[in-house]
Amino acid sequence: MSSAVSPLAPTEVPEMPAIAGVKLATAAAGIRYKDRTDVLLAVMDKGTAVAGVFTRSKCPSAPVEWCRAKLGGGKSSKGSFKGNSKGGFARALVVNSGNANAFTGKTGRQSTALTAAIAAKALGCRPAEVFLASTGVIGEPLDATKFDGVLGTLAGQAVPGEWMNAAKAIMTTDTFPKVATATVKLGKARVTINGMAKGAGMIAPDMATMLAFVFTDAPIAAGALQSLLKSGVEDTFNAVTIDGDTSTSDTLLAFATGAAADHGAPKISRAGDPRLKAFTKAFNAVLADLAEQVARDGEGARKLVEIIVEGAASKASARKIAMSIANSPLVKTAIAGEDANWGRVVMAVGKAGEPADRDKLSISFNGIRVANRGARDPSYDEAEVSAAMKNPKIQIKVALGLGKGRDRVLTCDLTKEYIAINGDYRS
Amino acid sequence: MSSAVSPLAPTEVPEMPAIAGVKLATAAAGIRYKDRTDVLLAVMDKGTAVAGVFTRSKCPSAPVEWCRAKLGGGKSSKGSFKGNSKGGFARALVVNSGNANAFTGKTGRQSTALTAAIAAKALGCRPAEVFLASTGVIGEPLDATKFDGVLGTLAGQAVPGEWMNAAKAIMTTDTFPKVATATVKLGKARVTINGMAKGAGMIAPDMATMLAFVFTDAPIAAGALQSLLKSGVEDTFNAVTIDGDTSTSDTLLAFATGAAADHGAPKISRAGDPRLKAFTKAFNAVLADLAEQVARDGEGARKLVEIIVEGAASKASARKIAMSIANSPLVKTAIAGEDANWGRVVMAVGKAGEPADRDKLSISFNGIRVANRGARDPSYDEAEVSAAMKNPKIQIKVALGLGKGRDRVLTCDLTKEYIAINGDYRS
Repeated sequence: MSSAVSPLAPTEVPEMPAIAGVKLATAAAGIRYKDRTDVLLAVMDKGTAVAGVFTRSKCPSAPVEWCRAKLGGGKSSKGSFKGNSKGGFARALVVNSGNANAFTGKTGRQSTALTAAIAAKALGCRPAEVFLASTGVIGEPLDATKFDGVLGTLAGQAVPGEWMNAAKAIMTTDTFPKVATATVKLGKARVTINGMAKGAGMIAPDMATMLAFVFTDAPIAAGALQSLLKSGVEDTFNAVTIDGDTSTSDTLLAFATGAAADHGAPKISRAGDPRLKAFTKAFNAVLADLAEQVARDGEGARKLVEIIVEGAASKASARKIAMSIANSPLVKTAIAGEDANWGRVVMAVGKAGEPADRDKLSISFNGIRVANRGARDPSYDEAEVSAAMKNPKIQIKVALGLGKGRDRVLTCDLTKEYIAINGDYRS
Repeated sequence: MSSAVSPLAPTEVPEMPAIAGVKLATAAAGIRYKDRTDVLLAVMDKGTAVAGVFTRSKCPSAPVEWCRAKLGGGKSSKGSFKGNSKGGFARALVVNSGNANAFTGKTGRQSTALTAAIAAKALGCRPAEVFLASTGVIGEPLDATKFDGVLGTLAGQAVPGEWMNAAKAIMTTDTFPKVATATVKLGKARVTINGMAKGAGMIAPDMATMLAFVFTDAPIAAGALQSLLKSGVEDTFNAVTIDGDTSTSDTLLAFATGAAADHGAPKISRAGDPRLKAFTKAFNAVLADLAEQVARDGEGARKLVEIIVEGAASKASARKIAMSIANSPLVKTAIAGEDANWGRVVMAVGKAGEPADRDKLSISFNGIRVANRGARDPSYDEAEVSAAMKNPKIQIKVALGLGKGRDRVLTCDLTKEYIAINGDYRS
């Protein structure tokens, strides 16, 4: 775990209100780390709907397979980060940091079953109502007996307001806890959406898996929640990359306790319900806030980089080109060096394999056009652009001039610190 | 240009014999660098066949478009690095380092035409028989008038033996010149194949474009040469990656002067001609040698990394998985840290999107199996593996256990020096 907080960390941390129907508790179970919390238990009231989206990895972790099966996706689900078709009910979420329980074979499956059984016993629910997430080293067996006793104690200690402590307990290489909140009208009732996330490489599989959890008291049925999550993730978590490396463990779960029905919130069964409009916007804003915080805590990051591609053949084409730029080590190292190296942006557009016409291409950095219609902008002023590159937030805008496709992704720069974090860790 | 030679540079440099029908000369034209050569002129005898394969970039450089058009591919060719269908004839090759003449619009096209005209005049040939390659900064106009005079002088100075000087003149961030040679029987005659390459990022578009040129005195028709090149590149240059960034300028040209016909080499018109068997093997060996030298000179590289994927659904699937591993910054930083972090290899297999079954997967580093059938190998010995990781050559073998698909790619590790080279260059 890095000791210095990212220079891109948010300067203000929101007050996290309680969510009726959710209680939290954390403990230090000694999974891997010393002198810090590494287990989170979230206890939900009966009737809480749950939805989830997961890594697209072909080698997912045991907890990912557990959650997918409980949501109805099963081991054979191809849904992965695109989401499953069916949601379910949840009474508990158990998260540990320090061990990902990934590539652990049969032992890993036994470990998830045992963890769920321990939690179910402590809470008096069914194991299938317990959701699990693990993050940390790959390939180490996870000794689930360490949860015995701990989860029973946590079940008794859980209280509504512990959001910051919860976000801290799930950190690995993260340099700051990531939380976001929104309050919004649903019908005539106010409902709350709280979220937390961890992740500093997207994704370093042995230390920096991306996990995120969103909770609301809104009475939203599991199927509708799943639809919200599936569409919400597309322009938020799926539009962030640190290093192009996809984790075995990426997990985003959403829980809706429905407690706001007690003060008049209407029960929602379809994601398309017009009463859900403001809620959907707020829900997506919470996802976007958390996703941006992941980019801001990118391993070794010194710059937050926003890439906008417009004029593409389609949104999907714009996404592919934006990701090609965002994952290019040469673009990322240039930004680390505060160099407006638009030649490398041209390279990354060219290698994306999507429709592009060199002679229609324009590129700007932080609003300053550096290249226009396939050549350097005649008004290019190196001093002006160099000054702009010193900003901690860099926006690269690429106009393709072909169609109406537009997309936006977030990433960070690639610094020597990234190499230090990932090259020096295990040795 | 880096001053220290890569620790992975070949310890022996071959004697490069003359090739009948090829003369070389170099000059310092002051394109960008001071006190070093930056222009190469290769002069070929009449009747020299030429073939070429080029970058797949959608934003190719002006010289790439020039060569493609002269080979019959034209601007609309989709062949790119897969090669063009038709070859042609060549009398000259002009290469400059320091400026890529890429993303230079109309000026760039005028510059290629002017360069070819100057060379054609000096040699008394047609401009369409002049082939061009440029490497260096993107987006800077290339002042072709600098070639005026220089090419005329070089035409008078060109001699058969200047292979090392030629390889030096085309370097950018390369730390050593890259040459390879083979002599082989064609019919009853001995023929020679000489090659040179440059490239240290695959590819850093403003400093380290990959260029390679192969010459032979064998009498091979252009169409057959094109077929040889197209199939030869697949497991050599196309199986090397430094950073996953594809240049706007990648160019591989092959020239066959046919001079060996004078001492009895048979004229070959089809790539499938059985008499070409030994030649094809030697030709591919020269390509493989040059490609490996490119990996050995990867920017900041301290380790040469060979990735073998076997048991995949197909060769194409094995290639995709091998490339996913080879381009993973987390795998590459782990190797830089001498860490046998097989969890990251699992991650890279998982994200490739190709058929894979976690519970059949086995992984070894330098012959030591670390993971077997979806879990850590029971006999795993950290000390033994750590010792093996200190080797300057690392082989990662992944056995998928699914089918008979096998492939191999070469890459290098990712070090802080890569960041320094690419982050500190322009600023």
